[in-house]
Amino acid sequence: MDRRSILGIAGIAAMLPPEVLAQSQSSGNAPSENAAPIGPEPGVRHKVDFGVIGLDHAHIYSMTDAMIRGGGVLKAFHATDPRQIDAFRKRYGNAVKLARSEDEILGDKTIGLIAGAPIPDLRAPLGIRAMKAGKDYLGDKPAITSLDQLAEVRRTIKETGRKFAIMYSERLEVRAAVQAGELVRQGRIGKVIQTVNLAPHRIGSGRPDWFWDKARYGGILTDIGSHQADQFLFYTGSKTAHVVAAQTGNLKWPGKPDFEDFGDMMLTGDGGTGYVRVDWFTPDGLPTWGDGRLFILGTEGYIELRKYVDIAGRPGGNHLLICDRQGVQYMDCSRVHLPFGPQFIADVVERSSVAQDQDQALLAAELVLTAQKNATRPVSA
Amino acid sequence: MDRRSILGIAGIAAMLPPEVLAQSQSSGNAPSENAAPIGPEPGVRHKVDFGVIGLDHAHIYSMTDAMIRGGGVLKAFHATDPRQIDAFRKRYGNAVKLARSEDEILGDKTIGLIAGAPIPDLRAPLGIRAMKAGKDYLGDKPAITSLDQLAEVRRTIKETGRKFAIMYSERLEVRAAVQAGELVRQGRIGKVIQTVNLAPHRIGSGRPDWFWDKARYGGILTDIGSHQADQFLFYTGSKTAHVVAAQTGNLKWPGKPDFEDFGDMMLTGDGGTGYVRVDWFTPDGLPTWGDGRLFILGTEGYIELRKYVDIAGRPGGNHLLICDRQGVQYMDCSRVHLPFGPQFIADVVERSSVAQDQDQALLAAELVLTAQKNATRPVSA
Repeated sequence: MDRRSILGIAGIAAMLPPEVLAQSQSSGNAPSENAAPIGPEPGVRHKVDFGVIGLDHAHIYSMTDAMIRGGGVLKAFHATDPRQIDAFRKRYGNAVKLARSEDEILGDKTIGLIAGAPIPDLRAPLGIRAMKAGKDYLGDKPAITSLDQLAEVRRTIKETGRKFAIMYSERLEVRAAVQAGELVRQGRIGKVIQTVNLAPHRIGSGRPDWFWDKARYGGILTDIGSHQADQFLFYTGSKTAHVVAAQTGNLKWPGKPDFEDFGDMMLTGDGGTGYVRVDWFTPDGLPTWGDGRLFILGTEGYIELRKYVDIAGRPGGNHLLICDRQGVQYMDCSRVHLPFGPQFIADVVERSSVAQDQDQALLAAELVLTAQKNATRPVSA
Repeated sequence: MDRRSILGIAGIAAMLPPEVLAQSQSSGNAPSENAAPIGPEPGVRHKVDFGVIGLDHAHIYSMTDAMIRGGGVLKAFHATDPRQIDAFRKRYGNAVKLARSEDEILGDKTIGLIAGAPIPDLRAPLGIRAMKAGKDYLGDKPAITSLDQLAEVRRTIKETGRKFAIMYSERLEVRAAVQAGELVRQGRIGKVIQTVNLAPHRIGSGRPDWFWDKARYGGILTDIGSHQADQFLFYTGSKTAHVVAAQTGNLKWPGKPDFEDFGDMMLTGDGGTGYVRVDWFTPDGLPTWGDGRLFILGTEGYIELRKYVDIAGRPGGNHLLICDRQGVQYMDCSRVHLPFGPQFIADVVERSSVAQDQDQALLAAELVLTAQKNATRPVSA
């Protein structure tokens, strides 16, 4: 992270209560260093009134921002923690209505879309209630923490015809990842054979109790790993896939028996294969929350993303390196457009599936839930 | 690779027949750009007369160089291909004796050590003959291509008390990898949890028939992957380990049914866990033979090696990046000392095991042979 980014976050930090900051700066869930978007991007064609329910994960800021940039109009939000409410109002303005209950939002016929980031195990039930209330849903990842929840989500989608979208932000809201998708689409590296994701995260301090409780966050592969399962499916273009092997463990926190700090998995699909490592071992000395990497191997070239930091290298994030038949090229992706918000709002209005393939989003969830269930231990001592 | 390295290799190239160059420059098995060492490094305490048998892999140059730097005195070599013989003589001088047969070397009582790089499936039988002739053996990797060979190697070591060493050059002869070992030993990244190796290679042109025949090279995990299994065991300090999952496949060469161009495996041991990807997909545009990476994750930090190239970055190879509690640091390891040669020659004389742990070297072989045997396909189409 360069000096300007640090200062940028510091600027936002002054506006936010310390508990939000502690969670966000240390864990990578910070609100964007920019102010909240005040309206849709130029060229956006649709408007959709949306509500926000559940502010337990700071991802809700980037989700809300993406909806506003895409044409969403934030009508109301609901949460019960006064500090969460305060922080949300500071960012989006006191004029945004605080609903007294979830039902007040679900019952509002003008609202077509719910964005939610409650505690992970509450996200699928919320989405199911939203769909049954006739609304589309965008849940923070992991939007589903058990195979039972997954089955019920699938059933409800079928019954209601509504959308259950999942914000896999490490692809959808990372500019370098968007650019990688475009290069793959162009055929620059031939046919994609494999993705490798390394996704370290910083624990930091000030984590809530549910952070340590596998029953609530679903396990490390379910929680963090759902991002990477999404990337594997997307870049390989896989429509079917299964887990080859998975491991999870707690290697550093003997006092937290329901916590997992390491997980990895091998996946394979009809489009290619994938490996994922997720962990909570970002060292104290790294200037940002995680040195997230993605390697996309193709038959004629490969792409590396240094998503959030280029250690001992270039400043800032969103670094893309590509090697193909012609040579090696570096691309600074910090100004690449993020299409998810506008595409998703258009999907809501037009009943299309441009922003996210429903089956693929749920298959990513299924993969990590299965991996989590069958995982062995990472050290065979 | 920087301009000087390219020119350096070009200089050597002029001295070598084209078939050696085609194999070496395109595949990364080039003789060092420096001239062959003329004698041991300063401070080396022992001399051992050694012979070389089998020049089918150009690795024999770095193996011979390492022995000479360590105190080895090259007495004789044996090969039958006139082009191989010619290239070897050009590098080490016409005074080196060409033995008329393998037996002439094995029967020479003054020779204590055999270094060999015949076709992979011939390496273990050669090592067994060498040990039975009372000599220690250094075989190019993969020194063993079947579990039957492995059993016989272990039996012969026990019977003869001789050494069967394996040149895992991607650790032992890579300066950045040596430095990583030193940093791990110092505890700079806490306890090692995991290693991730990505090891792409270039196929190039001019490969011999055996290159395409799995029965001869043992499969991609056995061949290339043995390097990475060695690194996993060494950096995690594992004494026992097993294969969690493995995949191998041929994704680009339908006309070569006995070839594998992709392999990966998850390993776990009593010291930590590991993931390995090996492939023959180095793109034409990469300025060297492979963008080999190693990530060593510890409880308090991590190390990344960009072994042979820092794409779109710093010139040359041997790049080490470390992030620990204090911060991020780049280390240019291009002048780090390579200890294997002197240590191994001392081991031969002193009957010690400083250069390589015999059990660990064979366990690395066992892991890849088992992985190879049980591997599933990488694409589940």
